[in-house]
Amino acid sequence: MTETRPNRLLDAINSPDDLKGRSRAELKQIADEVRNEVIDVVSVTGGHLGSGLGVVELTVAIHSVFDAPADKLIFDVGHQCYPHKILTGRKDQMRTLRQPGGLSGFTKRAESEYDPFGAAHASTSISAGHGFAKARDLQNGDNHVIAVIGDGSMSAGMAYEAMNNAGADKSRLIVILNDNDMSIAPPVGAMSNHLSKLVSSRPYRGLRKIAKKMVSPMGLESPARRAEEYLRGFAMGGTMFEELGFYYIGPIDGHDLDTLIPILENVKAMREGPILIHVVTQKGKGYAPAENSADKYHGVSKFSVITGEQSKPKPKALAYQKVFGQTLAKLAETDDKICAITAAMPSGTSTDVFARKFPERHFDVGIAEQHAVTFAAGLAADGMRPFAAIYSTFLQRGYDQVVHDVAIQKLPVRFAIDRAGLVGADGATHAGSFDIGYLGALPGMICMAAADEADLARMVVTATQIDDGPSAFRYPRGEGIGIEIPENPQPLEIGKGRIMREGTTVAILSYGTRLVEAGKAADLLAAQGLSATVADARFAKPLDADLVERLAREHEVLITIEEGATGGFGSFVLEHLAKAGALDKGLKIRPMTLPDVFQDQDTPYMMYEAAGLNARHIAARAIEALGRGDIAEINRLASA
Amino acid sequence: MTETRPNRLLDAINSPDDLKGRSRAELKQIADEVRNEVIDVVSVTGGHLGSGLGVVELTVAIHSVFDAPADKLIFDVGHQCYPHKILTGRKDQMRTLRQPGGLSGFTKRAESEYDPFGAAHASTSISAGHGFAKARDLQNGDNHVIAVIGDGSMSAGMAYEAMNNAGADKSRLIVILNDNDMSIAPPVGAMSNHLSKLVSSRPYRGLRKIAKKMVSPMGLESPARRAEEYLRGFAMGGTMFEELGFYYIGPIDGHDLDTLIPILENVKAMREGPILIHVVTQKGKGYAPAENSADKYHGVSKFSVITGEQSKPKPKALAYQKVFGQTLAKLAETDDKICAITAAMPSGTSTDVFARKFPERHFDVGIAEQHAVTFAAGLAADGMRPFAAIYSTFLQRGYDQVVHDVAIQKLPVRFAIDRAGLVGADGATHAGSFDIGYLGALPGMICMAAADEADLARMVVTATQIDDGPSAFRYPRGEGIGIEIPENPQPLEIGKGRIMREGTTVAILSYGTRLVEAGKAADLLAAQGLSATVADARFAKPLDADLVERLAREHEVLITIEEGATGGFGSFVLEHLAKAGALDKGLKIRPMTLPDVFQDQDTPYMMYEAAGLNARHIAARAIEALGRGDIAEINRLASA
Repeated sequence: MTETRPNRLLDAINSPDDLKGRSRAELKQIADEVRNEVIDVVSVTGGHLGSGLGVVELTVAIHSVFDAPADKLIFDVGHQCYPHKILTGRKDQMRTLRQPGGLSGFTKRAESEYDPFGAAHASTSISAGHGFAKARDLQNGDNHVIAVIGDGSMSAGMAYEAMNNAGADKSRLIVILNDNDMSIAPPVGAMSNHLSKLVSSRPYRGLRKIAKKMVSPMGLESPARRAEEYLRGFAMGGTMFEELGFYYIGPIDGHDLDTLIPILENVKAMREGPILIHVVTQKGKGYAPAENSADKYHGVSKFSVITGEQSKPKPKALAYQKVFGQTLAKLAETDDKICAITAAMPSGTSTDVFARKFPERHFDVGIAEQHAVTFAAGLAADGMRPFAAIYSTFLQRGYDQVVHDVAIQKLPVRFAIDRAGLVGADGATHAGSFDIGYLGALPGMICMAAADEADLARMVVTATQIDDGPSAFRYPRGEGIGIEIPENPQPLEIGKGRIMREGTTVAILSYGTRLVEAGKAADLLAAQGLSATVADARFAKPLDADLVERLAREHEVLITIEEGATGGFGSFVLEHLAKAGALDKGLKIRPMTLPDVFQDQDTPYMMYEAAGLNARHIAARAIEALGRGDIAEINRLASA
Repeated sequence: MTETRPNRLLDAINSPDDLKGRSRAELKQIADEVRNEVIDVVSVTGGHLGSGLGVVELTVAIHSVFDAPADKLIFDVGHQCYPHKILTGRKDQMRTLRQPGGLSGFTKRAESEYDPFGAAHASTSISAGHGFAKARDLQNGDNHVIAVIGDGSMSAGMAYEAMNNAGADKSRLIVILNDNDMSIAPPVGAMSNHLSKLVSSRPYRGLRKIAKKMVSPMGLESPARRAEEYLRGFAMGGTMFEELGFYYIGPIDGHDLDTLIPILENVKAMREGPILIHVVTQKGKGYAPAENSADKYHGVSKFSVITGEQSKPKPKALAYQKVFGQTLAKLAETDDKICAITAAMPSGTSTDVFARKFPERHFDVGIAEQHAVTFAAGLAADGMRPFAAIYSTFLQRGYDQVVHDVAIQKLPVRFAIDRAGLVGADGATHAGSFDIGYLGALPGMICMAAADEADLARMVVTATQIDDGPSAFRYPRGEGIGIEIPENPQPLEIGKGRIMREGTTVAILSYGTRLVEAGKAADLLAAQGLSATVADARFAKPLDADLVERLAREHEVLITIEEGATGGFGSFVLEHLAKAGALDKGLKIRPMTLPDVFQDQDTPYMMYEAAGLNARHIAARAIEALGRGDIAEINRLASA
């Protein structure tokens, strides 16, 4: 529960209705209280801080002017939605944010009627908003639709597709461009330059139609003299947004309620066409440590409110990301064909390690996975060795490009598939669940998964040497298992797995970092006198047919396990064995995959516990299949 | 072989080098000869006509000015590449175009060094070109990179992502925007309006930097007076392309070599930055029947050159597409929530049937599959019943949106997955091979495949009633099997298949339109005294567990067959049986899927023959598994 304090207005705000009829001074106080609340909350939960702090006033203004949930307010990405959650009946749950069973760190339809369209991936809000706008028109509704989108999200083609459609349409739609000149990293690309130019030049080109419309209902006697100035001075023509069919209003100071509220009131009164309001905000606004930080406290651990110092747990092992970045950078010292490509995630993927040494061979294309993939294909087609480091879940954005531009053309693009498997606090939207299947289905694609950080280093080396077609290697978010990384990692033999321990009764064939759990499962089984072989497949494609067939032949039970959905590694093993006739005489084979649900956030360990993919589940599956052994004993040992 | 005619210059053109040093008059004659050759070729092969006719002069101009293959010429989509193929050493093979074993209907790296980057899906050329440009710079190369992209392709976000990156970069890259005011259908969206405005208004704003640069090396005494006018008059500012960082030149008459060649020569001499040349052409130019046709003869059957009349084979049955469009339109008469969405394929998907009756509920979003999916999700979130009709291969462009915006949010978007399986003359790039796996992996997605056109009608009805989550139904390109379509199709029971014939020894479980071949296979087996059950799974998800387990239990052999890649329906069956322990005691199960290669164009039948998915292959697989029967006899009967 939030502490109740004397004179705190926020305590009385249980829905946006409670903002209505408040004086400007009260709203400013509420905004200040929301800001403090966001800082307090994130200091104990961790999460996304800078984005939310930047839109405190904007969120208060929107909710004081518009009538959610009847009016549909759609936040793009959702990093910035904490103030919105506080104002829409969720303030007492804020300290459960991103915690197991708690509030999502993003907007989420299942969580609140004030979240009409959930998000987490970037640049979806205008498309969704256009859908809501047309649905309203077709159903003779009268509500407003407001999409709030950051400038970083504007680098994605999806936002352009949406603007291109919404701008050519007459439907009422309000897009608020929250321009803080930051993506997660600083934004890249020509659009970003365009926005900077708009903000810095601000030419006065006289009252245009939009400005006239806006000034008149407000009246010139309005107290908002400053707002009028904006309307007159900044309603400029020739912007890309106007070319795309939007009325452009801005740039507007996004921290000034005296500007924001009158403008939103006027926009609300307008009854036509798509409108874009260009609001300039400061990421991390109002909290000095965030304002002064390079990343504006985009995503933070728990921290001290007073000092801003984050209490990051001391890492026990090098993160997979660092191993990838460092290995690639080292290889590039002697191979000038190696390039690295990231889609707005230089820090998240650790391509920044590469970038510091080889800036001219590092390409941050912004949130633009489609371009990232085909740009890499172009590099490969002209003789370079590109590594595209993209989160599994975001590579879904570039899937057609992987198929059409890379795989069909057999171009040697290397995909570093980051955030493979379950990811923890970011929840279902960030899980890397599907890449094993969606890449493994492609002819000629070589698919690897690292079981530990040393093998990841070997896979980077291996991929460097695959010049005759595409390859991919997946690895999870976060720390490795603490194993030593070889000084000079040697390339792997393509399509060959490795046996980690030899047993007789049960075979556990792991693809990826469940290998540790597979080993523990073998221990649990051993305690019951059941001998288990543990193998690391390393490759889902080409499959190690000899290994798979041998494991099937020499054991009573064969378990496959992977950090991915149905239709992946286990399927490839099953299809191979079925086609080879290896199931004809019977095989107790048990594919273990992610369950057929989208899992909400929790710790990765507990998510795998819920998924049934930890050691005790593997051992239990073996015992069930064997028909002998004691599952209760397994569970007792596992929890001991 | 092409007929050799007296005085025909084209006969001497075996590579772009043979265009060098020709007089303008000769080049004009060559262009005319290329145009006639394109018409002649397509009249006997069928294929894409209008696009190629529109770029004859442009292609001649490019190849006379630039030095392919050292200079990299990348055609977007590739519909327009026939003149290019004629000029780059392939003129003698043109009559094999789109034929089995012949030239591809698109550009293709494996086919020619003059095709540095293949295509077929839209809007990839600028990304690829940017990759080539950076690879050149990193390798200290000096070649030019030219991407030729149509205005229709400009509606895709991918093109924007590429412009946003290339425009912010200093690398030399030439983009030629071929503006024929046509996509496959007329183009949609604000960008299209923007281009129209550029073409119609053409304001003179004085010589800009670019114009100055271009005029001076050419000299004012140049014969190209007209080109100079273009340079002075049409090099205008304020275009979206300039905002995106490109030097904009245009609009230019794309059929006038006297304009095109001097401008390209000057652009070639420029040594900086990305340049966009806006060329206006006429789709179907120079062939009256094409010019006068609404679709400009975009894709045609064989035709009479004199009359333009196409010899379309009389259809034996209604196409799946028509069944979809008509059924949906009929349902919409009594259900005002139904909407139809297409991404630039109203004719291809037959949503135009729906559009004619319910224009306000039909949305053609242009080549913009990402927006199509999330726009549909927005419609669904506000209570509509959207059907997004998208080719299987193009839905790959919207995969993340299917996962993130539709499936995770459990929104009832209905996906009509057109062009499922192999497609014939369009080849590997258009095959619908992967959707069973990439959709079936998603929690909550209901996946159906129609075995015939009557079942497709039932699936449309079924999907209409699925209001609590997403659903998809797939069906192939082209004609159904000639079965009667019920007057009032009844919805299917979710997750239930059907038995088509009962047998005892072999079970063939088909998902999709291989059902006919499965029936024929049963006949072939029956001739050898082997009794086969044939079942239609109808659903890949949820799987009909009862049916699958019964078939496994009651037969010696279980064959699954589908028109899709590994990791699809057969995998789901195998995983289910494995998890249920139904493989423990042995099952001769044989999953039959598309082979692990990208198959080149042929007739669909012959492509399935190569894939090993026709009746004789099914029967042979059963006989192999059984270890009894005569495969030679099967092949004899099948070819009889």
